[in-house]
Amino acid sequence: MTPRVTPRGRRFVEADITIGELGEFGLIARMAARMAARLPRGGRVIVGIGDDAAVLPAPDGRVVATTDLLVEGRHFRRDWSGPRDVGHKAAARSLADVAAMGGVPTALLVAFAAPPDLPVRWAEEFSAGLAAECARGGAAVVGGDVAQATAITLAATALGDLQGRPPVTRAGARPGDVVAVAGTLGHSAAGLALLSRGRNAPAELLAAHRRPMPPYDAGPQAALYGATAMIDVSDGLLADLGHVAEASGVLIDVATHLLPVSRALTEAAEFSITAAAGSPPPPEVARSAGDAQAPGADTPLGWILTGGEDHALAATFPPGTGLPGRWSVIGRVLPPGAGHRTGVLVDGKRRAMRGGWEHFR
Amino acid sequence: MTPRVTPRGRRFVEADITIGELGEFGLIARMAARMAARLPRGGRVIVGIGDDAAVLPAPDGRVVATTDLLVEGRHFRRDWSGPRDVGHKAAARSLADVAAMGGVPTALLVAFAAPPDLPVRWAEEFSAGLAAECARGGAAVVGGDVAQATAITLAATALGDLQGRPPVTRAGARPGDVVAVAGTLGHSAAGLALLSRGRNAPAELLAAHRRPMPPYDAGPQAALYGATAMIDVSDGLLADLGHVAEASGVLIDVATHLLPVSRALTEAAEFSITAAAGSPPPPEVARSAGDAQAPGADTPLGWILTGGEDHALAATFPPGTGLPGRWSVIGRVLPPGAGHRTGVLVDGKRRAMRGGWEHFR
Repeated sequence: MTPRVTPRGRRFVEADITIGELGEFGLIARMAARMAARLPRGGRVIVGIGDDAAVLPAPDGRVVATTDLLVEGRHFRRDWSGPRDVGHKAAARSLADVAAMGGVPTALLVAFAAPPDLPVRWAEEFSAGLAAECARGGAAVVGGDVAQATAITLAATALGDLQGRPPVTRAGARPGDVVAVAGTLGHSAAGLALLSRGRNAPAELLAAHRRPMPPYDAGPQAALYGATAMIDVSDGLLADLGHVAEASGVLIDVATHLLPVSRALTEAAEFSITAAAGSPPPPEVARSAGDAQAPGADTPLGWILTGGEDHALAATFPPGTGLPGRWSVIGRVLPPGAGHRTGVLVDGKRRAMRGGWEHFR
Repeated sequence: MTPRVTPRGRRFVEADITIGELGEFGLIARMAARMAARLPRGGRVIVGIGDDAAVLPAPDGRVVATTDLLVEGRHFRRDWSGPRDVGHKAAARSLADVAAMGGVPTALLVAFAAPPDLPVRWAEEFSAGLAAECARGGAAVVGGDVAQATAITLAATALGDLQGRPPVTRAGARPGDVVAVAGTLGHSAAGLALLSRGRNAPAELLAAHRRPMPPYDAGPQAALYGATAMIDVSDGLLADLGHVAEASGVLIDVATHLLPVSRALTEAAEFSITAAAGSPPPPEVARSAGDAQAPGADTPLGWILTGGEDHALAATFPPGTGLPGRWSVIGRVLPPGAGHRTGVLVDGKRRAMRGGWEHFR
């Protein structure tokens, strides 16, 4: 079972070796080396990569666990995102879900299915990005699996610890609570709109699409400050607040004047309008890479309200809570409307706007 | 975000609705309903399917975690395995890894990527099989994710509890230990060989390929009895004992007269020889579905030594251990050979035999 590192019939060239030529066990060794390089100090992994399963401390006596998929052509394109970007994003999606429960990320496992002609370098760089994002969140990559597939398909499972606090679910929002967010909104969606039009600036928006930066520490912080409900903004702000409203049986009213519109978003919108007059992107291209906007929603407010994938956190807090620095109020929780209708209002009105991304559509 | 259950432009027919027509949130609801129907009693899930992440008890203060991939065309074929079979197998692969650490399975998360034209019924039956196998192992399905892909790609992450015992890794085998197995060997490989030749009997071998039945309770049992090393037999007995030998720095000697050859295996081999004389299966077909045999290995001993996917457990125990009922001795652990060579011997000799399955080959 020694890895075959010399492809048959041609000279071995390290730079372009594929994972098919390297084989399963060689690939695992290469990926594990990149992941182990970023293991957090402190001996928090009892059994790591290389056995049947990993063993980790769960000091709280409970464990938070979540799995997220990342599929080439649906969630990323190799021509728009480098392998490190994809690694960062794969980790961020799952770690943000741990934070959204009020948990501190501890570990990540990754299932990596890819075509045999994928360069080994891609898998190594992906592993480095995955481990770097885990390190940013305080987690270690402790295990995984590899298999052959026609498109790169990644499943990242994150584990976390609640540090003695109750989990913050989607179901605890109460009328009178304030609604607040931590992290950026709309930047990833704007970045994707720019990429789909071949635009290379503003750089911070492209970076936000390629490597979202969830504010992991804001999750446990919100739990400490008594957050009544919390969610990771991945489908779009309105869609995700809709999940909170539905689970909690309330109405949520977002005040647009409280939403932070960055200069970068304004610049991007100006470019989009100009570009749209010229050559609009084919909708399939945008959709296939995970675009969440409604047609005509290429405005700062459209991106902020319906763009997902920034992995900001949204939470509700009891009225009068002095919010910690990362959190800013964007609305309030109301009792359900007539006929006990739950949902999300924008400036007090129901809004006819496509609410977010849904797969298989 | 209400699921659209009526496809556009044609009459709604429940029997042939696809997951693309149902949409992401509708699909999740349908799958979750099938999974929740099999939740173990006793309130062991603190937060289950439907929030950002699940929360589970980890009473031991540690948690066992493992991820396994199952890819259509590589690990299963839809014409050879029904959706319930695939659900059972996806769960079994991961739960067996937990048992192989000496852990008791507690929970499973599943990432489900599939083409939009997949019938909803397939996803529902898969979910039912997954949950049924989890229930057999004592675990609950607590979360997951769905996405669109060109082939069905499944990643199952299992969690488990060590109940206060140290984890049993691959690295603890010592010279003098006995080697033992629990569960069946070679049945899955023989079943696959039969399927690839269009054969429908012996039924127990076909069933073993479609729905492996790992002896989950034998894992914690082995740990209780002081097992020094343990592994899940998924690549093939020789290959997996090779992993133990390498991690432990020992030689392992398997005594073929101790290996259990069932009547079903003998029957299957007789048929294979007859069939091989007629029309051998194209090797790509067998390989693409996970065949682990070397050419000419269609014998009971070949299947037992090199066939994977039964998810039997193999372990080493200190000499003189009175083994519990599920375990039977098949060999012994020797010091490393001349030049500190580790590896696996069969009846005292190194054997020129392809050792097991490796991906990307």
